[in-house]
Amino acid sequence: MDERQVVESEIRVRYAETDAEGVVYYANHFVYMEVGRVNFLRAIGVDRKYWDRAGWGLVILEASCRYRSPARFDDLLAVRTWLEGVHRTSFVLCYEILHTEEKRLVAEGRTVQVFVDLQSMRPVRLPPDVHDMLSRAAGSATA
Amino acid sequence: MDERQVVESEIRVRYAETDAEGVVYYANHFVYMEVGRVNFLRAIGVDRKYWDRAGWGLVILEASCRYRSPARFDDLLAVRTWLEGVHRTSFVLCYEILHTEEKRLVAEGRTVQVFVDLQSMRPVRLPPDVHDMLSRAAGSATA
Amino acid sequence: MDERQVVESEIRVRYAETDAEGVVYYANHFVYMEVGRVNFLRAIGVDRKYWDRAGWGLVILEASCRYRSPARFDDLLAVRTWLEGVHRTSFVLCYEILHTEEKRLVAEGRTVQVFVDLQSMRPVRLPPDVHDMLSRAAGSATA
Amino acid sequence: MDERQVVESEIRVRYAETDAEGVVYYANHFVYMEVGRVNFLRAIGVDRKYWDRAGWGLVILEASCRYRSPARFDDLLAVRTWLEGVHRTSFVLCYEILHTEEKRLVAEGRTVQVFVDLQSMRPVRLPPDVHDMLSRAAGSATA
Repeated sequence: MDERQVVESEIRVRYAETDAEGVVYYANHFVYMEVGRVNFLRAIGVDRKYWDRAGWGLVILEASCRYRSPARFDDLLAVRTWLEGVHRTSFVLCYEILHTEEKRLVAEGRTVQVFVDLQSMRPVRLPPDVHDMLSRAAGSATA
Repeated sequence: MDERQVVESEIRVRYAETDAEGVVYYANHFVYMEVGRVNFLRAIGVDRKYWDRAGWGLVILEASCRYRSPARFDDLLAVRTWLEGVHRTSFVLCYEILHTEEKRLVAEGRTVQVFVDLQSMRPVRLPPDVHDMLSRAAGSATA
Repeated sequence: MDERQVVESEIRVRYAETDAEGVVYYANHFVYMEVGRVNFLRAIGVDRKYWDRAGWGLVILEASCRYRSPARFDDLLAVRTWLEGVHRTSFVLCYEILHTEEKRLVAEGRTVQVFVDLQSMRPVRLPPDVHDMLSRAAGSATA
Repeated sequence: MDERQVVESEIRVRYAETDAEGVVYYANHFVYMEVGRVNFLRAIGVDRKYWDRAGWGLVILEASCRYRSPARFDDLLAVRTWLEGVHRTSFVLCYEILHTEEKRLVAEGRTVQVFVDLQSMRPVRLPPDVHDMLSRAAGSATA
């Protein structure tokens, strides 16, 4: 039995990311999810060199976030990222943003994305090796 | 019969908001929704002076976006904003981001938010006048 | 005698652009200068269509800002932009960011930039028509 | 003889920080300098807890950057930060942003800043212990 892979990324909140209420501005949680997503893909072998060679970009189709508690300047956060599902062209990632010291949930997120061919800007059908890497990370059998 | 009020905001895409794929970065659509939200609230009478007097901040509980087509540097966009529902403390706003010249849908969004007392950081129960202003904008009878 | 052309752009401060001190974060003044710069170039005839046709990008070589007074959420600002000098490949733009209602100076900025060929990423020698448009805007004779 | 202290911060370029030319947008180098500045101050003992206790904020008076070569998505950068001078209320920080792998200079920056009292928003005269910590970091005798 495979297990779902969870990749953890560390974020230190920048002053640039806070707003006049003293907390991280709500759009910036999606930037933190990007950090989680890129590290997740790197961890399973789909890093920037892979993208460049393949001529791919990553396009987000849907994104959502539920905000649970505020994060502030200089807080250390952990973005836990895992794969919820793999389809023919798209895949679904989930995120938990945690306050490292206070051990509380800051936000929960979810994105649906596809790889696109940067020439045609059309979604690419995931090649077998990438589909396998993703399926393994999702903890689902591919046989 | 009241009608739902739709407030339209104009956005000119900045270079700062694009990414290496040549399109608006996915988190920035939430910044565009902020512009829509602030203009919507101003249009119904809840502007910054109101907030300052009341000692309120606006806190987002949930945010989501579906990306339909790309927007690029210097494109003119229109953010159409309307109120979907009003509850005891929270209210739901919906957004359509349209490409003005090409008349296509760029993105659809939704946010759930509360006003908070900036001292206690707790949600305030919407006072009757604000509840009325919101209900009227939502096109629902308040009697 | 030609006169130096000053182009004014209006900015409404977004919540996204403020920081935990309640004021516009210092890097965002450079984003406001971008708005001023793009509008300035559009006003003298070098708009996005021109760039696209020419295959050019605009690359900043130097940027600086002196911060004079704070700007806050929802403030209306005016970015006044003018051309200080035109060289063989580069040109110098100056900016004043003003608080419209309170008639005070928020910041003064300056950028040095070149157009680059997006294929080679090398600075292009300004073609005569662009050199003329810039020189005229700078208020200097081009005889 | 004291030596000037140089503090190095690591940055991984985020997609959010790139623009449609495929490189880091010019205002974001100032965000990288913030990371360098905060780490520098933490290294010499003026961390967030110190600020909170003192009721201080850090206000930038001047900022400048010279761009030497581009940085791209996923590049590893090092921000080297040091103190150039300490005055009665202000101090001057310098920055080099380096491309770690390619060992090239990406940008050079400089900021002048003061600590302000967050109540009055006026610059605070640097208390003796902070003045000492800064002077020592600048490599200058304080006796």
